[in-house]
Amino acid sequence: MLDRYSTQEMRHLWSPENQYASWLKVEMAALWAMEQQGIVPPGTYQELEAANLKPDPAAIEEIEAVTRHDVIAFLTHMEQQGGDVAKWLHFGMTSSDMLDTSLALRLVEALDLILEAAGRLADALAKQARTHVTTLMVGRTHGIHAEPTTLGLMFAGWYAEMQRSISRVQDARNQAAYGKISGAVGTYGHLSPEIERMALERLGLKPETVSTQVVPRDRHAQVLAALAMMAGSLERFAVNLRHMQRTEVSEAFEPFGSGQKGSSAMPHKRNPILLENITGLARTVRGYVMPALENMALWHERDISHSSVERVILPDATSLMQFALLRMSRVIEGLDISEDRLLENLWLTKGLVFSGTVLLALVRKGVPRTRAYEAVQRAGLATYRGAGTFRQMLEREQLVTELMDPEELDRLFDLGHHLRHAREIVDRALNEKHPLPQGDS
Amino acid sequence: MLDRYSTQEMRHLWSPENQYASWLKVEMAALWAMEQQGIVPPGTYQELEAANLKPDPAAIEEIEAVTRHDVIAFLTHMEQQGGDVAKWLHFGMTSSDMLDTSLALRLVEALDLILEAAGRLADALAKQARTHVTTLMVGRTHGIHAEPTTLGLMFAGWYAEMQRSISRVQDARNQAAYGKISGAVGTYGHLSPEIERMALERLGLKPETVSTQVVPRDRHAQVLAALAMMAGSLERFAVNLRHMQRTEVSEAFEPFGSGQKGSSAMPHKRNPILLENITGLARTVRGYVMPALENMALWHERDISHSSVERVILPDATSLMQFALLRMSRVIEGLDISEDRLLENLWLTKGLVFSGTVLLALVRKGVPRTRAYEAVQRAGLATYRGAGTFRQMLEREQLVTELMDPEELDRLFDLGHHLRHAREIVDRALNEKHPLPQGDS
Amino acid sequence: MLDRYSTQEMRHLWSPENQYASWLKVEMAALWAMEQQGIVPPGTYQELEAANLKPDPAAIEEIEAVTRHDVIAFLTHMEQQGGDVAKWLHFGMTSSDMLDTSLALRLVEALDLILEAAGRLADALAKQARTHVTTLMVGRTHGIHAEPTTLGLMFAGWYAEMQRSISRVQDARNQAAYGKISGAVGTYGHLSPEIERMALERLGLKPETVSTQVVPRDRHAQVLAALAMMAGSLERFAVNLRHMQRTEVSEAFEPFGSGQKGSSAMPHKRNPILLENITGLARTVRGYVMPALENMALWHERDISHSSVERVILPDATSLMQFALLRMSRVIEGLDISEDRLLENLWLTKGLVFSGTVLLALVRKGVPRTRAYEAVQRAGLATYRGAGTFRQMLEREQLVTELMDPEELDRLFDLGHHLRHAREIVDRALNEKHPLPQGDS
Amino acid sequence: MLDRYSTQEMRHLWSPENQYASWLKVEMAALWAMEQQGIVPPGTYQELEAANLKPDPAAIEEIEAVTRHDVIAFLTHMEQQGGDVAKWLHFGMTSSDMLDTSLALRLVEALDLILEAAGRLADALAKQARTHVTTLMVGRTHGIHAEPTTLGLMFAGWYAEMQRSISRVQDARNQAAYGKISGAVGTYGHLSPEIERMALERLGLKPETVSTQVVPRDRHAQVLAALAMMAGSLERFAVNLRHMQRTEVSEAFEPFGSGQKGSSAMPHKRNPILLENITGLARTVRGYVMPALENMALWHERDISHSSVERVILPDATSLMQFALLRMSRVIEGLDISEDRLLENLWLTKGLVFSGTVLLALVRKGVPRTRAYEAVQRAGLATYRGAGTFRQMLEREQLVTELMDPEELDRLFDLGHHLRHAREIVDRALNEKHPLPQGDS
Repeated sequence: MLDRYSTQEMRHLWSPENQYASWLKVEMAALWAMEQQGIVPPGTYQELEAANLKPDPAAIEEIEAVTRHDVIAFLTHMEQQGGDVAKWLHFGMTSSDMLDTSLALRLVEALDLILEAAGRLADALAKQARTHVTTLMVGRTHGIHAEPTTLGLMFAGWYAEMQRSISRVQDARNQAAYGKISGAVGTYGHLSPEIERMALERLGLKPETVSTQVVPRDRHAQVLAALAMMAGSLERFAVNLRHMQRTEVSEAFEPFGSGQKGSSAMPHKRNPILLENITGLARTVRGYVMPALENMALWHERDISHSSVERVILPDATSLMQFALLRMSRVIEGLDISEDRLLENLWLTKGLVFSGTVLLALVRKGVPRTRAYEAVQRAGLATYRGAGTFRQMLEREQLVTELMDPEELDRLFDLGHHLRHAREIVDRALNEKHPLPQGDS
Repeated sequence: MLDRYSTQEMRHLWSPENQYASWLKVEMAALWAMEQQGIVPPGTYQELEAANLKPDPAAIEEIEAVTRHDVIAFLTHMEQQGGDVAKWLHFGMTSSDMLDTSLALRLVEALDLILEAAGRLADALAKQARTHVTTLMVGRTHGIHAEPTTLGLMFAGWYAEMQRSISRVQDARNQAAYGKISGAVGTYGHLSPEIERMALERLGLKPETVSTQVVPRDRHAQVLAALAMMAGSLERFAVNLRHMQRTEVSEAFEPFGSGQKGSSAMPHKRNPILLENITGLARTVRGYVMPALENMALWHERDISHSSVERVILPDATSLMQFALLRMSRVIEGLDISEDRLLENLWLTKGLVFSGTVLLALVRKGVPRTRAYEAVQRAGLATYRGAGTFRQMLEREQLVTELMDPEELDRLFDLGHHLRHAREIVDRALNEKHPLPQGDS
Repeated sequence: MLDRYSTQEMRHLWSPENQYASWLKVEMAALWAMEQQGIVPPGTYQELEAANLKPDPAAIEEIEAVTRHDVIAFLTHMEQQGGDVAKWLHFGMTSSDMLDTSLALRLVEALDLILEAAGRLADALAKQARTHVTTLMVGRTHGIHAEPTTLGLMFAGWYAEMQRSISRVQDARNQAAYGKISGAVGTYGHLSPEIERMALERLGLKPETVSTQVVPRDRHAQVLAALAMMAGSLERFAVNLRHMQRTEVSEAFEPFGSGQKGSSAMPHKRNPILLENITGLARTVRGYVMPALENMALWHERDISHSSVERVILPDATSLMQFALLRMSRVIEGLDISEDRLLENLWLTKGLVFSGTVLLALVRKGVPRTRAYEAVQRAGLATYRGAGTFRQMLEREQLVTELMDPEELDRLFDLGHHLRHAREIVDRALNEKHPLPQGDS
Repeated sequence: MLDRYSTQEMRHLWSPENQYASWLKVEMAALWAMEQQGIVPPGTYQELEAANLKPDPAAIEEIEAVTRHDVIAFLTHMEQQGGDVAKWLHFGMTSSDMLDTSLALRLVEALDLILEAAGRLADALAKQARTHVTTLMVGRTHGIHAEPTTLGLMFAGWYAEMQRSISRVQDARNQAAYGKISGAVGTYGHLSPEIERMALERLGLKPETVSTQVVPRDRHAQVLAALAMMAGSLERFAVNLRHMQRTEVSEAFEPFGSGQKGSSAMPHKRNPILLENITGLARTVRGYVMPALENMALWHERDISHSSVERVILPDATSLMQFALLRMSRVIEGLDISEDRLLENLWLTKGLVFSGTVLLALVRKGVPRTRAYEAVQRAGLATYRGAGTFRQMLEREQLVTELMDPEELDRLFDLGHHLRHAREIVDRALNEKHPLPQGDS
C-alpha cells in the first residue's frame, strides 16, 4: 500500500497493529461465548479483560520467525502477556476461525470507508446535476457532435451510475460480513453453532451458512467485482472530464492549486493529472478482480493459496478505491466549468446538431424517409464544408422550403423545446429511491 | 458460439433470425406507444400488425453491405415488406433506442435460461446433500487429511454457494432489464418519457434512469461479473470432484456412458472429462469479465466500441455458462459415489484425524498447550511413519495414559460425537430463505 | 467465430473440414515415418495415399455422438473409407500426438495470416510516415497542447511499435511450431524420438523438448500474450485517430464509403465507427490472455481442461486479430487527413507551444530557473486568457525584453529549427533492422 | 510491497532513496553528454560531481506537497544542495526524459534479480532431473494413472519450461532497456539525438526508436506478460507438487523446518504451505498483466494514466516474482521424495498402466483395433474391480492367450523397455542450447 495513494485511516486499518488488535477482539468474543456456554471456566473473560492485552507486532514476528505460523506466534505472545489464563484463548478453535472472522471485520470496515467516500462523490455529482440542469452543452456520440443536451444531464447520469455502484458495494459488504467459528473442517467438532452465533453477533457478523475450514471465497470475489465495477464508473467519469479539458474542447478543468506547477518545461499547461491518475488507479483496481475470482476454487475443505493473494489485493484494492473516490470527489466539487465554452462548442457545427430534428419534421410532413434523408444529408455536408450555417443550407433545399416556412424552421432550432424534459430526467435520477442493499437480514 | 458447447435454445436466442424478430418487437412496441400518444396516425399499429412482417436476415445483410448500417438496412427491408405505412417504424428514434432495448430483451431471456439451469444444479446439490448428510468422509485441508466430515456437508456447502451465485445472477438480470427510447443523446428531443415508459412496460422492461444514446454499460458489466462468479463456483465443484476421481482417491466418479471410450490407448481409464471440460468453460467465461468492465468508460454520450465486444462475449458467455451448468447438473445427478472408499480413506491415516480432538482434551485437563502439542505431535509423527494406529501411539505417551483411561480415549475417537451437528448445518443451508433479488421494484 | 468479424480464409482454416484434413495430414506423416522405421509394413503409406481419404465432418460427428471421443470417431471413419490398411493409422499413438501436432499446424498458419496482415499495416504506417515527415502538427500531452511535432513522427512511432508487435508474434509463432509424437505420457513407450523427428520435419514442425501427453501450454499462452500486445497497439492507434476525428479536432478521418450512412437520425455525421470497432475488437482479444495463462497449470502429465478453452479462444482471438489488422490497414491507407486543420490547431494556443523554448532560452542566458519560469508562466496564462498571442505577451515581460531582441525571439518561434531532427527520427525508425524472430534454429 | 513477500534487495531497489539516486544518476549522465556537446559550460559535470549530491526523500516530499510535481521538487532540492551550478541539471529536458530513463534502469535491475533467481530454480530442476532420470513413477492423465514414466522426466519437462520462461523474461528485459532524452514530445526540440545516445550509452541503455514524451508502454506490457507466463510456470510446478504431497499420494513433500508447526489444531500435518503460497503469488502476478496491457493506449504524445498503475504493479510484480522464484528454488532443492511410495503408486492399479502396450501388441499381431480394444478393456475393467492383476485378467482372455505365450506377455510388462528413451529425453532437455535473448544488438 503506497502512502501516495492511500489515506491515513486506511493505512491504519490494514496495519499489523490493527490486525493483531482485531485478532484479539475475535478471540475475546469467542472466549466470551464459550464462557456463556460453559466451555471455559467462569470468570476467564473478565480476568483476560483485566489483563489488558496489547499485541506487539514486533514481538509476534520474532516468534513467527521460528514457528513459521502466525497464529501460534500470536497466541504464544498473548500467553506471555496474559499468563496462564490466556491458554483459554483460541480454545477448540482452528486458526481460520479467528483469521477469517477478523478479515471480515476489517474488510467490512474498509468497505464502509469506501461507501462513505462514494457517498461524498454521489453528493457532489447530485449538486452539479442540479446546478447545471439547464446549462447547454453539445451531446457527442462517437466523439462527434450529435444533438444538444445539458451538463446537468451528464452529471445526473453519472450520479445514477454511482448509485448503482454504491448499491453493488453495499451488497458485497453485506455478503462479506460473515464469520465462522466452526473448527478445522466446518463441523463444529469441538465447539457448537450456538457459540459461533453468539460470538459473531457480538462482533456484528453473521455465521457462514456452510463453512469449510474457511468462509467460501465467492464472498471476497464479490467484493473485488463490486470494486472493479465502481472503478469502471470512476474511469468513465475521469475519461470524459479529460475529454472536456482537452485544449480544443476546454469546457471543464479539474481544480488547480495555486502553487501547483503544470509541467517542468511548459509552464502554461493545465493538465488533468488528477483525472489521469484516477484513470490509472481504476485500471489497477480492475485488475484485482481476476486473482479474486481465481481464489474461489479452493481444494477440498480449503487450501491456503488464497491467503497470499488476499494479503496483497484486499488492502491495495480497498485503499486505492477509497483514495480514487476522494480524489474524484474533490475534482467534481471544485470543477472549473466554462459555460461560455460549452455554448460556443454547441454552435461549432453551425446548427448541424438539429439535423435529426429537421429530418423528422420532413418525415412527419409525409416525405419518404430516404428522400428526406438525402436532402438533410446534402445540407449537412455543405455546412460541414463551411458553406454557411445549417439553417442557411436548408433554405437552399427545395424540399425544405416547399414544405416549411421560416417560422416553422425557427421552431425546429428551438433549444428550449429540445431540452424540455431535462429537469424531469434530473429529478427522476436524484429522487430515485435506491433499494436497500440486499442482505439476509 | 460453438455447437459443441451450446444448447439449441441458446443458439436460437442469439441467432440473426431472433435478433431481427426482437428488433421488430421493440419497434412495434414503440410504435404502439407513439400511436397512443398521438405521434403516429391512428390505425398504424394495426395496419402493420396485419402486414405480418417477417425480417429475413439474408435480405437485410444484402442491404447492409451497401449502407454499412445494420439498422437502416433493417428498416429499409421492413419498408420493402410493409409498404408505405412501415415508414412510421422507428419514427423519432435513434438506432440505439431499438438496439439496446432489444439487447435487454434477449439478454434477460438468456439469463433466465441460465437461472433455470442453475436451479436444476442447485436441486441436484440439495438432493445429494440430503442423501449423504451422514456419509462419512475425511475433511482435507491443504490436500492433507484433517478431521472427519460428511459428504452431505460438502454438497450443502456447494448448494449454499450456488444459491449465492444464483442470487447474484438474479440481481444482474434485474439490472439488465432496462431499455431506453430517449433519442440520440438521451434527452427525449423528439419523443417523451411517457412513450418510453409505455413501450418498455409492454416489453417487460424498465426505463433507464438517465440514458445517453445508450443504456450505461455498468449494467452489462454486472452481468458478466455475476457470470464470472458463477463460473468460479462451477470451477470449485469441478476441481474438487476431479480430486475425488483421482486414481489414488477414487471416492466419486462422473457418469460414464456405456458406449463411451475413455482413451484411444488406455481402454480401462475413467477420466473426469466432463469435469475437466467444465473447468475449462469456467476459465473461458471468467475471462469475459475484463472486456465487459473495460466497456464501461464510453466517450461522452456514447462511443460504439462496446458493440463488437458484446457481439462476441454476450452470446459466448451466456451460452457457455448455460451449457456448463447443464453439464454439471448431469454430473451431480449421476455421480457414482463409493461410500466404501470414502470410509477407507477416512481411516487411511490410522486415526490421525482425531489428533486435534486429543490435543483439546489434554488442554481441557489442564495440560499447557505447548506440552500437549508436543505429545500429540510425537504420537502423530510415529503413526505417520507407520509404527501403528494413532490410538496405539497415544497409549505409549505417558502424558496421555496418566490423564485418560481407555474409555475416555474411546469417546475421543467417536465419529458420532464429531459429526453431531452435520444434520443441523445441512438443514440450515437447505432451509435458508434466499432473499429476493434486489431490484428497483 | 462471427462472419461479421472474420475473413473467409480464417473461417476455412478453423473449419471442421480443415481440422479433419489436418488430422489426416498428421496421421499420414506419422505413418510415413513409421514405415521408414519399420514399424508399419512397407507399402502402407502408398496404399493409403492411393485410397484418397476424405474425412467427412458430418459422418465423424455421427460416430462421435456414440463414442464421445472425437479421435476414435475420426479413426473409425477413416477405417470405413480406407479399409483394412487404415488400421495402421494412429498406430502406437495417443490422441494428443495427433491433436497437438495438428493444432500447431493450424495455429502457425493462423499466425502467418496475422503476420501478413500486420505487415500490410506496417507498410501503410511507413508510407504515411514518409509522406507526412514534415506535416506540422501540435504535440499533445495530457490531451493539452504541448510542443510542435509532425504527423510523420506520429506514424513513425506507430510503425516502430507495430514492428515490435510483429516481432513478438513471430517469436510466438516459432514457439508454437512444436508438435509431439511421444505417446501417452511423453516417454515414447511404443514409438521413438526418431519417428517423431521425421514426421514433424515432414510437417515443418519441431519436436517438443520434453512433452507430457501434450505440448506444454506455455507455448499457447505466449501466442495469446503476443496477440494481446498487438491488440494493445491497435487500440493505441485507434484511440488516437478517434481523438483526431473528434468534431473539435477534425484533423483526420477514417475512410467513408460513398453509399455509407452515418447515423439513422443525424445524416451529416462522420463517425469513426471502424476505429471504434477496432477498439472493441482489441479489448476482446486482450481478454483472452487470462484463460490462456490459466491453461498452463495442467495436472501431472495433462488434464484436458485447456481443450474447451482453446476451442473457443484460439479461433476467436486469431480471427478477430486478423480482421482488426486488415480493417486498420484500410483505415491507415485511406485516411483523410486535413493538413489545414493540423496547422490551424497548432496555432490554436497562439504560440504557447513555444513556452518551453522561451523558458530554456532565458535559463541559457543565466536567469535562475524559477524566475524564468514565473515570467513565462505569467505570459502563458495571459495568452491562455485571450489577452493576445504568446509572442505579444512575452514582449510585455521586462525580463524577456531586457535579455532578447525581436530577432532573437523570432528564432525561438522557428518551427524549422524545432523539427530539424524529424527526418532523422523517421529514417531511423523505417530503416531499423528488425532482428529475426528468435527461434531455436 | 509487503516485507513478507519480498527480499531486502528488491525493497531497496524500489525504495524512494534508490529512486532519487537513480534520478540523479540519469541527470548526471545527461549533463555529462550535454557538456561533451557544448550545451552546458565546461566543468559543470565535474563541479556537480564534487558537490556530492545526496537526495533526501523526506526533503523532496516536503517540497512536492507544495508544487505537486515530483520532478520539480527533486530539482529544487538539488539546487538547495548543489547551489547555482545545479541549475544545469535537467537542462532542456522534460520530466519524462529523466523519469522513463530512470524507470528503465531500475526495471532492468529488477529483471536481472528475477533472472538470477530463475536461474537458480532452473539449476535445481536440472539437478533433480539428473538425479531421478530413472526413478519410476506413474504418469497420470486426467488425474488417472496412465502409463509409467520417471520422476526425472517430470523435472526435465519443468526445466525446459523454465528455460522458455527465462528466455521470455530476457527478451522483455532487453526490450525494457530503452531510455529517452528527446524532450517534451520526442522531437529533440532543445537537445539532440547525439546527446541522448551518449547519455544512454553511459547508463547501459539504448535510445527509444521513436519516443513521444515517453517510452511507449508496449515495452512495459511485455515485461508484465513475460512475468505472467513465468508465474504460470511456477503455478504449474506448485500445483503438481501439491498433488504429490496429498495424503493419498504422498510421493513428495516440501521441506519442513524443524521448529515449524503444521497446524494449530492438528499437529501431525505436513501441509504444502510454501507451494500453496507460491500458487497464490502466481495468481497475483498474473493479474497485473491486464492493467499493463491497458496502459498501452496512451493519448497522443502521452497521458499520465500509466504512471499510477506502474507505481503499484512494477514493484509489486517484480518483487513477488523474485520471492516466489526463490521460495520455489528452496522447495525444489529440499524436496523430500519418497521413491518407495512412487513405486507403490505405480503398481496401485495392478498393471493396468500396461494396457496400452498390450493393445498395441495385439494390433501388431493383426487383430482389428476394435476387437483388441474390447478384450483389453474387459480385462482392464475386471482388474479395476479388484478381480486380480491385469496380467492375470489378460490370461483369462482367449484372444490374448491364443496369440501370446507367457514370455511374450512378460516382455510387455517390462519397465526397462518402456522407459528406454528417458535418459535421451532428459539429456536433450538439459543440453539444449538456449538461444540468446533476442535484442536489437
